[in-house]
Amino acid sequence: MSEPPDLAKLVALDDFEALAEERMEPGAFAYFAGGAWDEVTLQNNVAAFRKRRLLPRVLVDVSHVDTSTTMLTERVEFPFGLAPAALQRLAHPDGELASARAAAAAGVIFCVSTWSNVPLEEVARTADGPRWFQLYVHRDRSLTAQLIKRAAEAGYRALVVTVDLPVPGYREREFRSGFKLPLEGFGNLDLSGDDSEMHSIIGAAHDASLTWDDLEWIDAQSEMPLVIKGILSPKDAARAVEQGARALIVSNHGGRQLDRAPAAVDVLEEILDSVQDGAEIYLDGGVRRGVDVCTALALGAKGVFVGRPYLYALAAAGEPGVARAIELLGTELRTAMTLLGAPSIADIRRHHVV
Amino acid sequence: MSEPPDLAKLVALDDFEALAEERMEPGAFAYFAGGAWDEVTLQNNVAAFRKRRLLPRVLVDVSHVDTSTTMLTERVEFPFGLAPAALQRLAHPDGELASARAAAAAGVIFCVSTWSNVPLEEVARTADGPRWFQLYVHRDRSLTAQLIKRAAEAGYRALVVTVDLPVPGYREREFRSGFKLPLEGFGNLDLSGDDSEMHSIIGAAHDASLTWDDLEWIDAQSEMPLVIKGILSPKDAARAVEQGARALIVSNHGGRQLDRAPAAVDVLEEILDSVQDGAEIYLDGGVRRGVDVCTALALGAKGVFVGRPYLYALAAAGEPGVARAIELLGTELRTAMTLLGAPSIADIRRHHVV
Amino acid sequence: MSEPPDLAKLVALDDFEALAEERMEPGAFAYFAGGAWDEVTLQNNVAAFRKRRLLPRVLVDVSHVDTSTTMLTERVEFPFGLAPAALQRLAHPDGELASARAAAAAGVIFCVSTWSNVPLEEVARTADGPRWFQLYVHRDRSLTAQLIKRAAEAGYRALVVTVDLPVPGYREREFRSGFKLPLEGFGNLDLSGDDSEMHSIIGAAHDASLTWDDLEWIDAQSEMPLVIKGILSPKDAARAVEQGARALIVSNHGGRQLDRAPAAVDVLEEILDSVQDGAEIYLDGGVRRGVDVCTALALGAKGVFVGRPYLYALAAAGEPGVARAIELLGTELRTAMTLLGAPSIADIRRHHVV
Amino acid sequence: MSEPPDLAKLVALDDFEALAEERMEPGAFAYFAGGAWDEVTLQNNVAAFRKRRLLPRVLVDVSHVDTSTTMLTERVEFPFGLAPAALQRLAHPDGELASARAAAAAGVIFCVSTWSNVPLEEVARTADGPRWFQLYVHRDRSLTAQLIKRAAEAGYRALVVTVDLPVPGYREREFRSGFKLPLEGFGNLDLSGDDSEMHSIIGAAHDASLTWDDLEWIDAQSEMPLVIKGILSPKDAARAVEQGARALIVSNHGGRQLDRAPAAVDVLEEILDSVQDGAEIYLDGGVRRGVDVCTALALGAKGVFVGRPYLYALAAAGEPGVARAIELLGTELRTAMTLLGAPSIADIRRHHVV
Repeated sequence: MSEPPDLAKLVALDDFEALAEERMEPGAFAYFAGGAWDEVTLQNNVAAFRKRRLLPRVLVDVSHVDTSTTMLTERVEFPFGLAPAALQRLAHPDGELASARAAAAAGVIFCVSTWSNVPLEEVARTADGPRWFQLYVHRDRSLTAQLIKRAAEAGYRALVVTVDLPVPGYREREFRSGFKLPLEGFGNLDLSGDDSEMHSIIGAAHDASLTWDDLEWIDAQSEMPLVIKGILSPKDAARAVEQGARALIVSNHGGRQLDRAPAAVDVLEEILDSVQDGAEIYLDGGVRRGVDVCTALALGAKGVFVGRPYLYALAAAGEPGVARAIELLGTELRTAMTLLGAPSIADIRRHHVV
Repeated sequence: MSEPPDLAKLVALDDFEALAEERMEPGAFAYFAGGAWDEVTLQNNVAAFRKRRLLPRVLVDVSHVDTSTTMLTERVEFPFGLAPAALQRLAHPDGELASARAAAAAGVIFCVSTWSNVPLEEVARTADGPRWFQLYVHRDRSLTAQLIKRAAEAGYRALVVTVDLPVPGYREREFRSGFKLPLEGFGNLDLSGDDSEMHSIIGAAHDASLTWDDLEWIDAQSEMPLVIKGILSPKDAARAVEQGARALIVSNHGGRQLDRAPAAVDVLEEILDSVQDGAEIYLDGGVRRGVDVCTALALGAKGVFVGRPYLYALAAAGEPGVARAIELLGTELRTAMTLLGAPSIADIRRHHVV
Repeated sequence: MSEPPDLAKLVALDDFEALAEERMEPGAFAYFAGGAWDEVTLQNNVAAFRKRRLLPRVLVDVSHVDTSTTMLTERVEFPFGLAPAALQRLAHPDGELASARAAAAAGVIFCVSTWSNVPLEEVARTADGPRWFQLYVHRDRSLTAQLIKRAAEAGYRALVVTVDLPVPGYREREFRSGFKLPLEGFGNLDLSGDDSEMHSIIGAAHDASLTWDDLEWIDAQSEMPLVIKGILSPKDAARAVEQGARALIVSNHGGRQLDRAPAAVDVLEEILDSVQDGAEIYLDGGVRRGVDVCTALALGAKGVFVGRPYLYALAAAGEPGVARAIELLGTELRTAMTLLGAPSIADIRRHHVV
Repeated sequence: MSEPPDLAKLVALDDFEALAEERMEPGAFAYFAGGAWDEVTLQNNVAAFRKRRLLPRVLVDVSHVDTSTTMLTERVEFPFGLAPAALQRLAHPDGELASARAAAAAGVIFCVSTWSNVPLEEVARTADGPRWFQLYVHRDRSLTAQLIKRAAEAGYRALVVTVDLPVPGYREREFRSGFKLPLEGFGNLDLSGDDSEMHSIIGAAHDASLTWDDLEWIDAQSEMPLVIKGILSPKDAARAVEQGARALIVSNHGGRQLDRAPAAVDVLEEILDSVQDGAEIYLDGGVRRGVDVCTALALGAKGVFVGRPYLYALAAAGEPGVARAIELLGTELRTAMTLLGAPSIADIRRHHVV
C-alpha cells in the first residue's frame, strides 16, 4: 500500500499502531486492536503499568548490563516473548513466518497460535528460535491430541493451554466493523466446511466443558512442559500448579475476553503469594515499555509477553518491523535496567517498585 | 418520524439513547434522560459499575449456561426486570403495552408504574408475563387502597412501594427544557381537574407524611408480597425488613431524586450485611451491561432492574426495540457468565468481584 | 448594559456567573472571580462538596419542612448567610444596599465588609435584617476601635474578625487583568490619600503583626459576640475558642489567600472535634447547592456563608438578582431536606453523610 | 529573535516557557523541556506538589518575614538555588554567565554543571555568589580529579556528585526532534575529538561502574563538602550519609532519567526518616511556585533547587530573565510564608502540611 516506513525513526512501540491502521483493512484492524465490551480492561492494561512507580538504586556497577534470562527450558536474550496471536496474515502476507524469524533472530520466544495462518511445522522450519505452541482445546479430542503431537514433533518446547476462551468475548469494535473471520487459510485446522461466523465456529470447535480434570490428559499427550494461559484468580493459579502446570501466563487475553477483569500486573503479587515458587509466572497485557518489563519482573514475574505491539509492527513493515519492535523494547529494557541499578535480570527485585 | 432503525446493528444498550433522542420531543427526552441537580448521582450510577473489577474463574464446565432464576415468587429467564417508569406513551404510542409484551415474551418481570399511561388492567391483559405493580402512596388513602386492590385483582404478583419520592427531585434538565407533564392520559388516576404543573400535582397527591407505621396498613390491603423501593441506608433496610418487606430495591431513583446520593452498587454490601438474608435484595441504577448484572449478583443482589435503557429502546422502536434491548442484555449476561466461569445464576459468587 | 435577565429562567446559582461576566468590567470580574496562584483551592472548594455522598433516610414525615434556625443570637429563615465581600459597587451601582435588602427580605444574615462601598450605617438603615460586621484589624488601633463602635451602634449583632489576610494572596488573575482597586468610594474608611496599588494599601493598613493576644482587646471594644473567620487548623480553632470566640467561620477565603489550602468542608470534622461544642462552627467556600448546605450541616456546621454566587447575582440583576439567588438556594435546601428525610435543620445529622 | 519580553508582565515561572520555546531552536528546546519515555515522571513532578495541601496558621506576627537561611556553609537569601544544567548557551549566548550573575545578585546558590559551556573558573570570576560544582564522574579518574581540583581552587563551596546518570535516559522528545548535542563549546572538557552522538559520548565518558566504594576517593580529592544528587531510595540515602555525604539532593533528574520514578516530594519523608538529621536534605523536580518551596520545607527539606524554570527565563531574556524568575519565586515564597503564619524559614514546620 503506502511505502515502507523509516523504521529508524520509530522510537516507541506505540509508533507502530498508526502505521498498522493505515495499512490494514479496517475490519482486520478492529479485530486486532479491539477489546471486549467497553474496553475498560483493554485501556486499564496500559494504565495499570503507568500508575506503578519504580525506585531506582544508585552507585551499582552497571557498566555491563545483561538482559538474558531463562524462560522454562529456554535461554533467551530478553525476558519478553511474542504472545500467541491468531491469523497473522491479516496483518501481513508473511504472517507468522515474519514474526518467527524476527523472534528467532533476536533470541526471544515466539509462541505460535493454534489459529496461525502458517502451519506450525512451517513456522518451525523457517527459523530455529525458541518456540512454544499455544493450544485451544477442541471438543474433538483426537484433533486436540494430534495438534499436541504435531507441535512436539516440530520442536515446540512448551505447550501453552489457553483457558480463558470457552467462548469469544463480546467484542463490540469487531461487531461494529462488520469483520468476518476469513475461513480459508487456517494453517493447523481445516475449517472450510464451516459457515462464516466466527462465534459459531468457536462455539462449535472450542470445548467449553473443559475442566481441571482434563489437564492431566492434555499433559500426558507430550513431554512439553504445561503452561496455563489466562489465569487471574490466585486460587485458580494455585490449582493449576497443583495439577502440573510448570508455568502460568497471568492474562486477561489483552482485554478481549471479560471486560472489567483486572490488569495482570494488579493481580500478580497475590498470585505469586498463592503459588509460592511452584511455577514460573509470566504475564501479558499492556506491556509497551522497557519500564513495564522491569515492573513486572520486580513484582516477581519471570518474564512477559507482548501482543498487539508486534502485530502492529508486523502490519507496518513485516519481519523488519517485528525486528525493530523487539530491538526497541530490548534497548528500552537495557536502559531501564541500567538506570534502575540492576545489571542482570536477577538483580531486578521487589525493592525496585514502590 | 424517521424510519425504523436496523435493530440488528445495535450491539449495546447505550446505542438506543441517540435514537430515542432523535425521535422524542425534547422536553419528554429531558424528562426521561435527566437527573437531579448537577446529575452527579446519575453519572456516578454508571461510573460505579465501571470501576468494579470482576475476577473470572477458569476450567469450569460452561458448555451449558442457564440465566434463569427466581425473583420472589416468579420464575424468570434473566435476573433483570424492567423498572417502573411513568408515562411511557411519551416515548412511544404503544406505551406500557409495548414494554409489557416484550418483557412477557422474554420471560422477565415488568413493573408497572402507578403513573402508567395504560391502565394496569389493560397492561395485564395484553401480555401474561410476570408483573409487579409499583405504588405511589397518595394522601387519599381510599384511592391508595383501591389501586392496590386493582393490582391484586389484575394478577400483579408483588407490590413495589416507592419511598424516595415525597417530592420530586430538583431536576434542572427538565426545568430548562420547559417540559410540562401532560395531564391527560394517566391510566390509573384521574388528574384532569389538576393544574398543569407536575410538582404541585405530586405535592398534592403524594403523601409526604408517609412513615414506617403506614407500611402495616399498606401490606394489609393485599396478599401481594411487599417490596420497598428507594432505600440506600442500611438502617432503613433493616427496618423495612423488620416491618414486613419481602424484598428491597436499593435505588437512588436513577439519580432523579437526591443528587450526591451514593450508587446503589456502592451501598449494596452494607445493606446485605444489615439485612442478613431477611429479604431479597435488588438494585437499580446504572445497569447497562451484562457485566453490571454479574457485578450486582456477585455482591449479593438477587436481581437488578433496568430503567432508561428500555425506555430509550421503546422510543427508538416500540415493542421490537424493547425486545432487542432485553435480548442484548441477556446475550451479554450469558457471555459474561460463561467467561466468569459461572454456568448458573447461583454460581455467581462473592469471589467473582475483586 | 444588556437588558435585565429573566430571573425566573435561572435555576441554579451557577447560572448567574456568565450574566455577571457579561455585565462587569473585566478587571472587576477578575477581582471577584479569581483566586490565588493556580486556583487549586478555588476549584477544590467546589469539587470537595461534589465528592461527598449524602445518604437519604426514608419514611420520615416530611410533609412540613422548616429551614429556619439560629445563627448566634439571630433567628434566620435559612442556615446560610451572605459572606462579607468588599466593594460591591464594582458589581452593581446599588452595591451593598441591594444585598442587604435582599438578605433582610429573605431573613438571612448579611455580613458587611470593612471595605464596603456603602457606609455600614447606611447599610443598617436600608434594611433591618440580621446583620454582622466583618472587621479587618488596622495598624491604627483607634481606627479599629472606631469601626467596632460604629458597627455596634448601628445594630450589628456579631463582630467577624478576618484573620487570614495579613497580606492579600498572590492573585494572578487579578495581576493579569491589570485591575486596580478604585480608591474612591470606600464607605467606612478614607483611603483617598493613598497611592493606587491595592497590595501596598493593604500592606500599609492591615495589621500583619496581629496575634492571639490582640483578640482580648478587640473583644473588649463592644458587646458583639466575637466570630473568627479564616481558620483551617484544628489547633487554631481550639485556641480561638479558648480566647473567647463565640463562633468560627472555617474558610480559605474563597481560595483567594493561600493556594493549596484545604477546602473548609474537608477540615470541618477535625475542627469540630477540637472545639467540642465550645463555639458555633460555620464555613464558607464552594457552597453552590442546597445539597452543599446539607453536607456542611450533616458534618456538624451550624450554618454556611455564600460569597461569589450572590455577588454574581448582584452584578446580574441588582437586588432582585440577590433575592432570586437566595430563593433558589432556599428552594434547593428545602427539597434536599425533604429528600434527605430531615424535616428540620436539627434533623440533619452525621448519619446523612457517607 | 523577537523583541525582549516585558518582564514586569510575567507573574509566574510558567510564563517563561512559551517565551523560551519561541526563542529557542526546536531541538534545543526539546533537549531542555523533554523528559524520559512517556514523561510520566516529568508531569508527576509538578502534579505531586499540586496534590499537597498546606495548612495555614493564623494570628502569628508576620509583619516581618525573613526568607533567608543557610544551605551547608552558605548564607542565602532564599531556600532555593539554581540546579545544575548543562550547556546553557543553547538557551542564551551568555549561558552560565547570565545565570551566575542573576543568582549572585539575588543571593542564591548557583550550581555549575560539569557540562557547562562557560568554564567553571570564568563562571566564578563573573559573579562572587554562593556557588556549588556539579560533578559527573568520568572513567578517566585523573580527569575527574582535575575537575574537582579546579572547582575547589575556583572557590566552589560544595561538590555535588550526580549518581543517577550512568547512561542518559530514554528521551523520546529529543530523539524525535533530531537534536544532536553540539560538541564544540564544552567549557570544562575537550570533547571535540568525539563523534557527534550524545549518548555514545556519555557512554564513553561517564563511569557506569561507579559504586559506593568510589565515594571515599572522590571525597578525598578536596575539602568541599560532598553532596550526592539523584537519590530516591531511603536505603541509598542512609548509605550515602554513612559514607560521608553532608547533603543529599533527592531528585529524579527532572524526569529525564528513569520514567515512572517517584516525585522527589513523595519520597522525602521516608528519606528524612532514614537519614535522621545525618545530612541536609534538598530536593529538585517540579518546583514552580512559592507554595511548592513551603511544601518541601514543611516536609523537612532544608531547601530546593529549580531547573527548567530558570533555563526558560534565561532563554526568554538572559540575565534579567533569570533575575525576574528568582524575584517572582522569592515574592511568592514571602507571600506564602506570610499566609502560612511562618515569619522565618525555621517556622515552616511539619504541621503546615496536611
